[in-house]
Amino acid sequence: MKNRIGIIGGGQLGRMLGFVAKQLGFIVTVIDPTPHSPAGQVVDRQIIASYGDEAAIRELASVSDFLTFEIELANSKLLDELVLQGVMINPSAKTLGIIKDKLGQSEFLRKAGLPVADFIKIETKEDILEAGKQFGYPFLLKSRFDAYDGRGNALIENEEDIEKGLNKLKGRKLYTERFVPFVNELAVVAARGVNGEIAVYDVVETVHKNNICHTVSMPAAVEKSVAKNAHDLAYKTMEHLDGAGVFGIEMFLTKGGEVVINEIAPRVHNSGHATIEGCVTSQFEQHIRAITGLPLGSTEMVAQAAVMVNILGERDGAVDVQGLEKALVIPNVSVHIYGKAETRRERKMGHVTATGRTLDEAMEKASQAKNLITI
Amino acid sequence: MKNRIGIIGGGQLGRMLGFVAKQLGFIVTVIDPTPHSPAGQVVDRQIIASYGDEAAIRELASVSDFLTFEIELANSKLLDELVLQGVMINPSAKTLGIIKDKLGQSEFLRKAGLPVADFIKIETKEDILEAGKQFGYPFLLKSRFDAYDGRGNALIENEEDIEKGLNKLKGRKLYTERFVPFVNELAVVAARGVNGEIAVYDVVETVHKNNICHTVSMPAAVEKSVAKNAHDLAYKTMEHLDGAGVFGIEMFLTKGGEVVINEIAPRVHNSGHATIEGCVTSQFEQHIRAITGLPLGSTEMVAQAAVMVNILGERDGAVDVQGLEKALVIPNVSVHIYGKAETRRERKMGHVTATGRTLDEAMEKASQAKNLITI
Repeated sequence: MKNRIGIIGGGQLGRMLGFVAKQLGFIVTVIDPTPHSPAGQVVDRQIIASYGDEAAIRELASVSDFLTFEIELANSKLLDELVLQGVMINPSAKTLGIIKDKLGQSEFLRKAGLPVADFIKIETKEDILEAGKQFGYPFLLKSRFDAYDGRGNALIENEEDIEKGLNKLKGRKLYTERFVPFVNELAVVAARGVNGEIAVYDVVETVHKNNICHTVSMPAAVEKSVAKNAHDLAYKTMEHLDGAGVFGIEMFLTKGGEVVINEIAPRVHNSGHATIEGCVTSQFEQHIRAITGLPLGSTEMVAQAAVMVNILGERDGAVDVQGLEKALVIPNVSVHIYGKAETRRERKMGHVTATGRTLDEAMEKASQAKNLITI
Repeated sequence: MKNRIGIIGGGQLGRMLGFVAKQLGFIVTVIDPTPHSPAGQVVDRQIIASYGDEAAIRELASVSDFLTFEIELANSKLLDELVLQGVMINPSAKTLGIIKDKLGQSEFLRKAGLPVADFIKIETKEDILEAGKQFGYPFLLKSRFDAYDGRGNALIENEEDIEKGLNKLKGRKLYTERFVPFVNELAVVAARGVNGEIAVYDVVETVHKNNICHTVSMPAAVEKSVAKNAHDLAYKTMEHLDGAGVFGIEMFLTKGGEVVINEIAPRVHNSGHATIEGCVTSQFEQHIRAITGLPLGSTEMVAQAAVMVNILGERDGAVDVQGLEKALVIPNVSVHIYGKAETRRERKMGHVTATGRTLDEAMEKASQAKNLITI
């Protein structure tokens, strides 16, 4: 059997992919610039190189039957070349290309008939003024590439803000988007198998602070019709995407009860971590199954409710995990520490998941446990 | 926080301990003579040396705050020395010493008032004849040390068998034991925390072929009173043992409905693998919690039934895993492949666990999945 997996990126996502890939008996190599990276610690081998290093990616491909990413990298030319050499790469270069450009992503979703916030491609400052006229204020000035955790966006509240926004995002390719006031942020993790098979997890509610994911509640406490709507949007999105793998689809629930797709991440996603304890098949096992041509697993929940709370760094310095002995007293709590050597303010250092009979119970336990841990 | 764990032994048990130790953020080193051992693949570092290599164990201790075993090793003198140096070692040298000698183990259990098969210490051939008189035929001639998977036992059916038995077990220290005809083999996995806290899992039924564990059904399909009895015996056993860690306690259920302790393994145990998918806290997480002074986790089941079937080698040669794509179509099935390079007849190469609403359902799924996999 083909049994070698290469992962570009050795952070916590690669680490959690590594756990299940190893459980299933795969030989796993990762690329990461930091020696002894979170994933490098738990897999067979780490190639120490930057994510985009072509020689390193070629080396990785030479020891891998299946190649995947925990970061949103797309060097189509190189990937196409490696595919010709017989390496199975998922998500596909085509999909990564679509998703990498946020404007292209919105165009792709609109073309597929899926609801996204209105957007306008811009070339000149006049185009931005035009957006103000069409959308009204406030609206968003957004970077097309390399924008995550809210970096690369500017809220334009009036004409004077345009100059400020252009300054903030200087040197980046931009587009404008209608501002969607939302009541909730939702997300759906979905997977597509090599043969087109699709599996969708329950919709979750995410809460962000400073644009960083803080808590995820599974399933989201929303009307059944909203959950069904979100599920169907995720399913349709997957139908339109090529290639295999797990995708995180972030959505807004508007005041009017509409669900609008915010953005797609072409990888396992922070909003899916609760699937480890909460579901029959975790998003990580699902991704490994998907990219290696194995059948997808059940996305069914094994608990009534699961809540994940991120453990973020609160200072800068060497890691020193404290409080596990208190947090683990709380029943039905699982702690995940990512093995990073350095803590930094707002850096994702680990997470806690609690399962329970109700979301309230799970949220209380997870929050309590998280608050007892410092790192 | 003290966060370095050393494990003597790098097989599948060390591997599964490694997964959870890494998830909890520990730095893990193992000793194993085989380079790139099952556990070595998934932890920070492997020291390549035989399990008893004193220099290697000293090196391991020098990079560990907590030391534990996946094999039944006991070099009391060395362990005592390391404890004095501040390394926490569990299970304790005292416990390992008691358990390592099967005669000593039986004496310990009898002294604690726990039911074991009658046994006689022997010095001469006359003592063996005496056993025949006391116990009647057949009875067992057993090795006191290094006996596992049925190796080191001889069934004595008549006086003539004695010479044959002595020949088979030549050079080993022996004792005799009454033969207990059993209707079922049961096992209980139990844990003891550093502070004496005890946690007991549901009793399971094990089925052995050629003295090798084939299937484990959790919970065992026995009368409530039998389950309670087995649970209580495990609890009492743990009360009498020193030190911390997970123990596997094998038992016989006799025709008369009595539960008798067969033997104790001072480590995570094949009969506990179904706890990974079947329980809130797996036996592996429980052991890591126990030996590092963390509170024990809930042993509650998260499914009504869980059945584990071992994947044993069926030939000799290089590993080639086949059939995963068929086995993983079956819902609620988890496959664990141990990452061994060489397969051998009857070698433990992996296992399958299925959860379900009934034992029959789980057994059918697990067996079906196992039969689809070759390795």
